[in-house]
Amino acid sequence: MKRFDCLVIGAGPAGVCAALYLARFDVRVALVEKLAPGGLLLQTSEVENYPGFPKGIKGYELADALDAQLAPYANLTRIRGEVQEMELGQDVKRVRIDDEWHEAHAVIICAGVRYKSLGLPDEHKFIGKGLSFCALCDANFFRGQKVAVVGGGNSALEESLYLAKIASEVHIIHRRDEFRGAPIYVSRLKEHANVHFEYSTVVSALHGDTALEGITLKRLHSGKEEFLPVQGMFIFIGFLPAGHFLPAELEVDENGFIHTDLEMRTKLPGVFAAGDIRAKLCRQVVTAVGDGATAANSAFTYLERKHG
Amino acid sequence: MKRFDCLVIGAGPAGVCAALYLARFDVRVALVEKLAPGGLLLQTSEVENYPGFPKGIKGYELADALDAQLAPYANLTRIRGEVQEMELGQDVKRVRIDDEWHEAHAVIICAGVRYKSLGLPDEHKFIGKGLSFCALCDANFFRGQKVAVVGGGNSALEESLYLAKIASEVHIIHRRDEFRGAPIYVSRLKEHANVHFEYSTVVSALHGDTALEGITLKRLHSGKEEFLPVQGMFIFIGFLPAGHFLPAELEVDENGFIHTDLEMRTKLPGVFAAGDIRAKLCRQVVTAVGDGATAANSAFTYLERKHG
Repeated sequence: MKRFDCLVIGAGPAGVCAALYLARFDVRVALVEKLAPGGLLLQTSEVENYPGFPKGIKGYELADALDAQLAPYANLTRIRGEVQEMELGQDVKRVRIDDEWHEAHAVIICAGVRYKSLGLPDEHKFIGKGLSFCALCDANFFRGQKVAVVGGGNSALEESLYLAKIASEVHIIHRRDEFRGAPIYVSRLKEHANVHFEYSTVVSALHGDTALEGITLKRLHSGKEEFLPVQGMFIFIGFLPAGHFLPAELEVDENGFIHTDLEMRTKLPGVFAAGDIRAKLCRQVVTAVGDGATAANSAFTYLERKHG
Repeated sequence: MKRFDCLVIGAGPAGVCAALYLARFDVRVALVEKLAPGGLLLQTSEVENYPGFPKGIKGYELADALDAQLAPYANLTRIRGEVQEMELGQDVKRVRIDDEWHEAHAVIICAGVRYKSLGLPDEHKFIGKGLSFCALCDANFFRGQKVAVVGGGNSALEESLYLAKIASEVHIIHRRDEFRGAPIYVSRLKEHANVHFEYSTVVSALHGDTALEGITLKRLHSGKEEFLPVQGMFIFIGFLPAGHFLPAELEVDENGFIHTDLEMRTKLPGVFAAGDIRAKLCRQVVTAVGDGATAANSAFTYLERKHG
């Protein structure tokens, strides 16, 4: 059993920034990270829209920079492990990380999101065998090959731009007749002759023996199906909150994202949320770090009033 | 008369980030800046807590970097001038900048804050003659001299740390018996032998002929007054919203800060606010840029639904 003033769950941009602010407030803070710090930054090739880097910055470089900023603070403890269970209703909150319980007076939940899958019968069997949720991680396996991208938002378009430079053909499959993502990405994608837009189309089946060999496309206007040979398929159709460990007392929206007020407070006293796991419209690195600082400020105020 | 999709009022971190996001959304955006872009960053020596710069970054360097990030976008217009008047109640909003009216379907207000003064009789006469609201700007005038700092929040403590390296003596005058600012600053200030803490004390008078020569301190516990010879005095006792041009229809708090919802929407359709001018608890560069991105996202969604 270890005890802290504040536990920060998740070491993506929101969690790292919350930990930075809490450390600077002289709070005894623990940052819980399941994997390497950086969150979804580690799955992002180039970040062009994080303010302060006019030439852009690689996702992993920004992740490293965020992480390095925590180094000077001796009052910050890093815990490597996965949260399994939380008890947040009491004054002293309890969080089980792997097999060990930890206690804190305040908790900031920055657990982020996990990607949605298509829900096709054989989908799980192809993960890592042609099917991926991260172009940056896996694009190189498909150099010079044909790939499909499923989705129509910014993630799908950004990752397609990246794939266009590596794969021989990129088919962007979107169930609607126009993209939700930023027009600037669409303009740029149109400059690539190897990018094909499959509007009003869904994937209805996956094919392959030991690895993906092709997919069935279903055209929504005609109802017709056709086979498209691809060796890779990248799915970017959105995400769900990553906190399978969230207790029922937390107020969440219909998809399970945590409701907060303007100061990142949840309905439970001493429990805050920041970053992608919040119910909000704009999920970006820059909004995640802003959330993190605000949540840390609110947690500090809470700790001062309650226990200072 | 010029017409845009969206006008962003103020080119501090919130405004610059809002303009960046809008430019990337392919929106015809105009960024209105009264002075050089950067906002309060231009009055900040070292920024240690903006995520992504583990070694810290000078305020003016971060301001330059934010500004440079806007360069690639041809759909962004920069307008140098001061907003005098706004009409925000209609579908097409009108904003008078100096003598010229501009129109837009959406407006994001990021006008920031202005500093509070003490309200002493001669205060105005000493501004620029010993009295300052910006240590970074003016500290060098007081090299080797005695200065006072009024305030007890993070700004007062940060600026005192900077002054401690330049002035011969720094007297931090605070009306309460402990500081509101981050403990880490207090610890660091205590390492400087030339820093003196004047708790439970206020400034009751300013003295000097053509320039500041000293101040009267009033000890709140005893009621006694004493003279402190100083050549410089820096006031950091908070701020008020900078938008003297805000129309009455906007909902504001008791100090005039603009109320928004979680997505930076004000009560007026198509009118958004971001950064320090919002009613909120945590006013930082990182929260300002987060606000800016969220406001831009909301403005884009509004424009798409309304006029897309």
